[in-house]
Amino acid sequence: MKLDGVPSRTIWLERDGWSVGILDQTLLPHKIVRLTLRTADDAAIAIRSMQVRGAPLIGVAAAYGLALAMRADPSDAALDRAVRLLAEQRPTAVNLRWALDNVRAWLAPLAANERAAAAYARAAEISNKDVETCRRIGLNGLPLIREYAEKKGGRTVNILTHCNAGWLACVDWGTATAPIYLAHDAGLAIHVWVDETRPRNQGAALTAFELQEHGVPHSLIVDNAGGHFMQRGDVDVVIVGADRVTAGGDVANKIGTYLKALAARDNGVPFYVALPFSTIDWSIAKGSEIPIEDRGADEVLRVQGRLLNGDVGSVAIAAEGTVARNPAFDVTPARLVTGFITERGVCPATRDGLLSLYPERTSAAA
Amino acid sequence: MKLDGVPSRTIWLERDGWSVGILDQTLLPHKIVRLTLRTADDAAIAIRSMQVRGAPLIGVAAAYGLALAMRADPSDAALDRAVRLLAEQRPTAVNLRWALDNVRAWLAPLAANERAAAAYARAAEISNKDVETCRRIGLNGLPLIREYAEKKGGRTVNILTHCNAGWLACVDWGTATAPIYLAHDAGLAIHVWVDETRPRNQGAALTAFELQEHGVPHSLIVDNAGGHFMQRGDVDVVIVGADRVTAGGDVANKIGTYLKALAARDNGVPFYVALPFSTIDWSIAKGSEIPIEDRGADEVLRVQGRLLNGDVGSVAIAAEGTVARNPAFDVTPARLVTGFITERGVCPATRDGLLSLYPERTSAAA
Repeated sequence: MKLDGVPSRTIWLERDGWSVGILDQTLLPHKIVRLTLRTADDAAIAIRSMQVRGAPLIGVAAAYGLALAMRADPSDAALDRAVRLLAEQRPTAVNLRWALDNVRAWLAPLAANERAAAAYARAAEISNKDVETCRRIGLNGLPLIREYAEKKGGRTVNILTHCNAGWLACVDWGTATAPIYLAHDAGLAIHVWVDETRPRNQGAALTAFELQEHGVPHSLIVDNAGGHFMQRGDVDVVIVGADRVTAGGDVANKIGTYLKALAARDNGVPFYVALPFSTIDWSIAKGSEIPIEDRGADEVLRVQGRLLNGDVGSVAIAAEGTVARNPAFDVTPARLVTGFITERGVCPATRDGLLSLYPERTSAAA
Repeated sequence: MKLDGVPSRTIWLERDGWSVGILDQTLLPHKIVRLTLRTADDAAIAIRSMQVRGAPLIGVAAAYGLALAMRADPSDAALDRAVRLLAEQRPTAVNLRWALDNVRAWLAPLAANERAAAAYARAAEISNKDVETCRRIGLNGLPLIREYAEKKGGRTVNILTHCNAGWLACVDWGTATAPIYLAHDAGLAIHVWVDETRPRNQGAALTAFELQEHGVPHSLIVDNAGGHFMQRGDVDVVIVGADRVTAGGDVANKIGTYLKALAARDNGVPFYVALPFSTIDWSIAKGSEIPIEDRGADEVLRVQGRLLNGDVGSVAIAAEGTVARNPAFDVTPARLVTGFITERGVCPATRDGLLSLYPERTSAAA
């Protein structure tokens, strides 16, 4: 998508043909700073410090991290060391582990002098595959938005989204945002309600920013406001991403998603979840089996932003010593989900619905 | 309630017998600063700058503002001038207008030399009446909490609240918090989930602070998290305040209340609204008739708090030029409300329920 008016990705090979460029996402939206990764250590630091974040992007960054490691030392020992180093930076990120295993399996049988080039090729392939998956999610979601646009006779279609399932979390397009970008680029009149998404404010810092950079009309709202706008008829459809979807169709996503699904149901607003195949956990049926990460109180107690002098800093919003709880995700039961938008098509939020798109998983599904 | 360990009110007569003390609520919870109002102008500034806020407290502050005006000049012209000055500081605050009209009607027939003393007496009466109304709300809500405590065999009762319907918004006790303080003081094991309540964070800045000062166990959570805790069985009852309740039982309250009511219903959690008689608008039946104040984007785009150097400041959470929308309230339909807790008792959230407590309003109710 566009950044400073130029079509961009979140990660790229620099002109030298070997070093890797990223956006420092910890400074967004306040400063657009591009960083260059030259070693596996650089990649590890970028992942740990969340300069790159979002499951798909972390996977791609890790793959390039292995390529950088192989360029310096293509030995088996160096490969193992780099896999271990990169994997431990975000222990719960499924895509990180998957990408590392994928690249290692590809490199292991190769002669040392072939590994660096092969690793770069594999990382590029993973990156391009992610772009294509997101684009297909967009193509499959686009007819839904077009349908609302036709129903409304060309009046603006209002879409609500939560958190950042945008191109900044991926390599390009995003998941929930892919149909939005395609609809905008196709000239449909759309407007996006962007939940700020406390505690980390990814909606305010990332989703509003990326929509603004690409020129998509939007309004930032506090997480409390979505229900009110649905009551007023100001939301035509909700599209969110997902962190994990069970074989039965329950959806773990950023905390607060469940509340928007309830409001959508209460007001007859369709609620869609956009996701790639890799988000589906075929091994479990019920959302209650998904472990929910409890994050530190500090994210609740402090808010990061731009100080008056332009620096990025933070303020404490509660008295010293205040106790806070910070569950990172909640589970939206399948009964509240109108449908899934995946790279294979759109389906109901049921086991049968998912299997209709992924028939090869029939034996695996819990 | 307690502040610095000492039973306190939000507004009081100073030792000199005429100047009026308040807490500067714009600095809470970061600094406890007491201010002295010596003129009607001081009172007007305190109201406009939200050093005093909360409908009941604004009314009392305005009443004392008239007393200060009468002390300086008890003429009819001065009375009119002070009423006008104070009324225009927060034009939408119903209690402000009510208190000013009440005191003016009381003073108008009196001789000039009697007015100052009469105004002080009337302001004290309005203040004490508010304390008594809140205490009665607490006494009527206490048995509900006691019932949950008994059901749970003494295990901690978890209460969720939204925004600040606490003693800081009133003179003492608060509305939603009155049953909580009484339950705590009675030795019941309770714990309060405090919604931070974006955009102004009154939950984090005021409710968590006042519960901490009084020693009531609580945890601050983001507004997104309440549904998750209800799904987990970690909320026994929700108690919120109200800005306006219609004769049919619909509830306008701080934005986001509706989402918590939906989650409560979805999880079988009782949802109570605590309110004094003055909150009921008998002239309208349906919540959709309540005008919803759209506040400025700045409250969404900037978050106030304590900077690292201890000063109170703010950070911008979105890119410059971001568009934001900021509805201040939403309407929770009566069908989602388990009951009302008022100074007269507890009733169902229906026209008949309200009239059972306020039979004298039968002819007035829409």
